[in-house]
Amino acid sequence: MRLNRIVPKWIKNYQRQWLHADMTAALVSGMLLVPQGLAYALLAGLPPHVGLYASLIPLIAYATFGSSSAMSVGPAAVLSLMTVSALSPLAAVGSPEYITAAIMLTLLSGVFLFAMGLFKLGALSNLLSHPVINGFVSGAAALIIVGQLPAILGVEADGETASVKLFHVIENLPQAHIPTMAFGIATAILLITSRLWLPITLFRLGVPKQIARLSARLMPMLLVLCAIGLVHWFKLEDKLVIVGNIPSGLPKLILPGFDGGLIYQLLLPALIIALLGFVESLSIAQSLAARRGERLNADGELLGLGAANITSAISGGLPVAGSFSRTAVNAEAGAVSPLAGVLAALLMIPILLYLTDLFSKLPLTVLAAIIIVAAAGLFDFRGFIHNWRYDRTDGIAMACTFAGVLLFGVEVGIALGIGLSFATLIWRSSRPHIAVVGRVPGTEHFRNVLRHDVETQSDLLFLRIDESLFFNNISAVEDRLLSELKRHPATRELVLILSSVSRIDGTALERLHQINKDLRSRDIRLHMAEVKGPVLDRLSRSKLLEKLTGRIFLSAYIAELALLHGEDPAAAADTAT
Amino acid sequence: MRLNRIVPKWIKNYQRQWLHADMTAALVSGMLLVPQGLAYALLAGLPPHVGLYASLIPLIAYATFGSSSAMSVGPAAVLSLMTVSALSPLAAVGSPEYITAAIMLTLLSGVFLFAMGLFKLGALSNLLSHPVINGFVSGAAALIIVGQLPAILGVEADGETASVKLFHVIENLPQAHIPTMAFGIATAILLITSRLWLPITLFRLGVPKQIARLSARLMPMLLVLCAIGLVHWFKLEDKLVIVGNIPSGLPKLILPGFDGGLIYQLLLPALIIALLGFVESLSIAQSLAARRGERLNADGELLGLGAANITSAISGGLPVAGSFSRTAVNAEAGAVSPLAGVLAALLMIPILLYLTDLFSKLPLTVLAAIIIVAAAGLFDFRGFIHNWRYDRTDGIAMACTFAGVLLFGVEVGIALGIGLSFATLIWRSSRPHIAVVGRVPGTEHFRNVLRHDVETQSDLLFLRIDESLFFNNISAVEDRLLSELKRHPATRELVLILSSVSRIDGTALERLHQINKDLRSRDIRLHMAEVKGPVLDRLSRSKLLEKLTGRIFLSAYIAELALLHGEDPAAAADTAT
Repeated sequence: MRLNRIVPKWIKNYQRQWLHADMTAALVSGMLLVPQGLAYALLAGLPPHVGLYASLIPLIAYATFGSSSAMSVGPAAVLSLMTVSALSPLAAVGSPEYITAAIMLTLLSGVFLFAMGLFKLGALSNLLSHPVINGFVSGAAALIIVGQLPAILGVEADGETASVKLFHVIENLPQAHIPTMAFGIATAILLITSRLWLPITLFRLGVPKQIARLSARLMPMLLVLCAIGLVHWFKLEDKLVIVGNIPSGLPKLILPGFDGGLIYQLLLPALIIALLGFVESLSIAQSLAARRGERLNADGELLGLGAANITSAISGGLPVAGSFSRTAVNAEAGAVSPLAGVLAALLMIPILLYLTDLFSKLPLTVLAAIIIVAAAGLFDFRGFIHNWRYDRTDGIAMACTFAGVLLFGVEVGIALGIGLSFATLIWRSSRPHIAVVGRVPGTEHFRNVLRHDVETQSDLLFLRIDESLFFNNISAVEDRLLSELKRHPATRELVLILSSVSRIDGTALERLHQINKDLRSRDIRLHMAEVKGPVLDRLSRSKLLEKLTGRIFLSAYIAELALLHGEDPAAAADTAT
Repeated sequence: MRLNRIVPKWIKNYQRQWLHADMTAALVSGMLLVPQGLAYALLAGLPPHVGLYASLIPLIAYATFGSSSAMSVGPAAVLSLMTVSALSPLAAVGSPEYITAAIMLTLLSGVFLFAMGLFKLGALSNLLSHPVINGFVSGAAALIIVGQLPAILGVEADGETASVKLFHVIENLPQAHIPTMAFGIATAILLITSRLWLPITLFRLGVPKQIARLSARLMPMLLVLCAIGLVHWFKLEDKLVIVGNIPSGLPKLILPGFDGGLIYQLLLPALIIALLGFVESLSIAQSLAARRGERLNADGELLGLGAANITSAISGGLPVAGSFSRTAVNAEAGAVSPLAGVLAALLMIPILLYLTDLFSKLPLTVLAAIIIVAAAGLFDFRGFIHNWRYDRTDGIAMACTFAGVLLFGVEVGIALGIGLSFATLIWRSSRPHIAVVGRVPGTEHFRNVLRHDVETQSDLLFLRIDESLFFNNISAVEDRLLSELKRHPATRELVLILSSVSRIDGTALERLHQINKDLRSRDIRLHMAEVKGPVLDRLSRSKLLEKLTGRIFLSAYIAELALLHGEDPAAAADTAT
C-alpha cells in the first residue's frame, strides 16, 4: 500500500504504445547530454566526468518525484556559472576542497528544494518576474561567453571582472594558439550554421520535417566525435589541450562530511541556486505543459528537482535543473512520459563503462565552442525590446539585472533585480491613480472626466481611487483630494468611489479620520461609494463609519440620485459588494 | 528683491495683536526648553550646555525655513537616544572624539534633511507607517527609561543590552545611593502627580482652565529650581552627583574638520536620524495644522529641520527635531506664529550669559527623573490595542518594531519595522482577492456570490479580480481561475471583471496570453469587462487584444446581455473607463 504511493503515477498509467517514442527521445536527448554534461562540468570548474555522473541518477530521481512529462533535467549552463562564482572565492578551482564544496553546495540546494516542496512553497517562484529572469540569464550568458573565450581562442587571459578578462583576451589575441582557435571556431561555426540551415536544407532534400529538425540537435555529439577522430588520427594530443583522463566506471556515491563553517558560507549561494534552478525549470515545464494541455504541480517540481540535486551531490556535485535546449529536443523527439528521461540516463551507463577513453581525447576548445553557442542562445534581445515597449519599468528592471550580473556578478545581479522589481511594485502602489469621474449621460456608469464626455455637478465631486489605501500612498491621496477640492471650490459633497480599494490599513484609516474632520470644518461632507465587502467589514470595526459626515452608497449612481434629488432607493441600505 | 524672497512669509504677514500671545507662549515653552535641553544633551552623552546651545540658533533657523506655525523644534528624547547609540561604538562617551563625531552626525543629518527639502522628497516620510513609528517610539522610550534607572536610583549598572542593564539595576538595588534615589523618585512622583492632578485641582480652585493646564507644564522648571535651591541651602554638592561646571557665554560656532572615514561611518545613522526626526516632526506638525485648519508643506519642513540641524551642529552637535511635549505647550499657550519659537530661543541668551552657575548645582537624578517621565509619556499602549484590533498585521509590525528596538537597538529595530511593513504590502498584493460574482436580480450590479443572493448562469462565469496583476500574484490568479473552472465545468464564457486592476505588468501579460491559449484549446472564450483606460491603452500595445478569444465589454451587465442573448448595445464599443 505504502509502496504503491511511492511509485510515480506515470508508471502506473504507462501505455505500451508510448515506449517507441520515449526510446527515440531518450536516444536523441542522451546524445545531447554527453557533450553538454562534459562542457557544463568544466564550466563549473569540476572534472568533466562529473557532468556525466550528474546525468545519471539525478534524472531517475527527478522522474520519481517530478511532474513534468518531458522536461530534461541535468547539468545547465547558468547553474554551472553560479557554482563557479560561489565556490571560487572559497577554494582553488579543481582542488579537492573545491570539489568538496561543490558537493556540499549541490546537496544544500537539493535540500532547500526538497524542503520547499514538502512545505508547499512553490509560490516562491513568484519572487522573480520574467524581466528579471531574462536579464539575469542574458547577463549570465555574456559572462559564460567571455569566460570561454580564452579556451576557444587558446589565449591566456585572467581578470576579476568580465570586462578586464575581455580586454586581456583582445590584448593577447596575437599570441593565440592557432590550432586551438581553428578547432574551436570551426566547431562554433558548424554548430551555428547547422542550427540555422541544416533543418531547412534536409527538409528541401526530402527528409521529413521532424527528423530534419532533430538532426541539427545531434550536431554537438557529431562534432565531438569528429574532433575526437581528428585528434586520434592526426595525433593532435600534444598540440591541443584535451579533456584528459576520465575515470571509467559508474559513480561512487559518497556523502560529504559535516562542516558547519562551510555550510554556513554556502547557505546563501545554495539558496540562490535552488531558487533560480527552480524558477528556470518551472518556466520550461510550464511552457511545455501549456503546449500539451497538462497541469503542472509546482510543489511536485520542487520535490523532483530537490531529489535530483541531492542525488547529484552524492554522485559528484554538479547542480542540476531543467535544461531549455534538451527539453526542446526531448519534446520534439516525441517524449511522452518521464520514462524518456530515465532511458536517457541509463544510456550513460554504457558510456561510463566503455567509452570514457574515447572522450578523454576531446579537445577543450570544442567544449568551449559548444558552451558559447549554447550561451548565445540564452540571450533574449526580443524579450528586452518587448518588455521595453510594453512597460518601461520592466525594461529597466531587465537592463539593470543584466548590467548587475555583468558588473557585480550573478548573486548581486539577481539580488538587484529582485530588489528593483519589488521597489517598482512599492513605488507604483505609492502613486495611486485617482480620477475625477462623472456620469455617462443616459447610463448609470461613471467614467473619467478626462477620457469621456460625462455630466458633472458643481457641488458634487466624485473621485475614484484606483488603489488600496496604505501608509505609503495615503499622503498622495490626501494631496490629490485637497488639490481637486481647490479646483472645484463649490464642492459640498465629496464622494470617494472605492471600487478598486481592496484594503485600508491603519495608517490610512487614521488619515481618513483626519480628512473627514478637516472637511467637516470646511462644511464639506465625505461619502463613500462601492465599498467592497471585506473593506466595509474592517471599517465597521473602527470608528470612522460612525464619525463619517456623509454616507455609504452601493454605487456612484445611487449616491448621485440621493445627493442631488434626495431620492433614496432601498438598495442604498445594501452596501457591501 | 532676492532678499525679499528669503524673508519668511510669516514675518511679512505678521500682525501686531499676535505679539502678546507669542510672547506668553515663548516664555512657557522656554521654561520647558531649559530642563529638557540639559536632560536630552546628557542623554545623548554630551555636555549639558550643548542642549541649551541647541535651543538657540536652531530654533531661529527653523523659523526661517519651516512652515509650521507653532511647532517647537529643539532637543528630543528619541533623537538623543539614537545619537548615543550611533556614536558609542565609535568613541568613548564624553571624549573629544565623541563630541566631534556628534557634530558631524548632526551636520550630516541636517545636510540630508536640507537636500531632501531641495529635491522635494517630502514623500519619503511615507516609508514609515504609523504602527512602525509607534512601535519604534515605544521601544525607544523603554530603552531610555532603563538607561536612566542607574542615574535616578544611584546604582551602578552596566550592560550591553537593556535587559542585562535592567537585571544589574535590580541586582545592585540594595547598594542604591539613598539621597540620589530620594531626590530622583520625589521629582518623578511630583512630575507625574502634577501632570495628572494639578490642572484639575487648580481649575477647581477657580484658576482659569488654560492657566491651570499650563502650570503643570511649568513643573519641570519649578522642580529644577527647587532642587538647585535644596542643593545650595543644604550643601548637598558632595552628596549628590550634580551637573557641574557649565561654561558661561554664547555658543562659539565651529565647523567640524573634514574626516572622510568618520563621514562614511556616520552616513547611515545620520540618514536614519534625519528620516526619523523628519517623520516625527511632520506628524506633530500635521496634527497641529489639521487642528488649526492650516496647510503644511512637507518640503518646507525638511528645509526648516535641515537648517535647524546644520546650525545645531556648528553650535555644539545635538540633533534637533519637533518635540511633541513642547509643541503641545506652545500651542496651548497660544503661539500664533513662529515668532514664539524665535522668542523662546532668545530667552536662552540671558540664561547662557548669567544663569549657568545656577544650573551647575542641578542634581543629575532630577534630570533623570525628567527624562523618565517624558519617555513614559511616549508609550502608546492604546495605539497598539487599536492597531491590533483593526488590522492584525499592523499590530504585528508594531510589536516587532518595538521588540526589535529593545533587543537589537534603534537602527536594527527601525529597519525591521520598515522591512516588515513593505513585506506585508508585497505579501498582500501577492494574494489577491478574487470573487465569483453574479447579478443582483433586477439591477445592473454584479456582486460576490458568497455575500449576496445573485443570479448566475451555468455556462457564463464572472470573476472579479480585486488587485492589479503583477509578477508576484499572477500565478495565484491563474490557480484560482483554473480551480473555479473546475468547480463550474459547464463554463463556456469566462468574463474577468477588471474594475480593480490598475496595472498589468509584462509577466502577468505573458501569462494572460498563455491562459487565453489554454482556454481556447478547452473551448472556453476569455472576455474582459470594466477594463480601465490606462490598462486598455497599455494592452493595446501588446498582442493580447488581437489574440483574445473573447471580447472587451464596458460593463459586466453589457457582457451578460451580449453573451446570453446576443444583444449588443452600442455602448459595448466604448470600452475605456
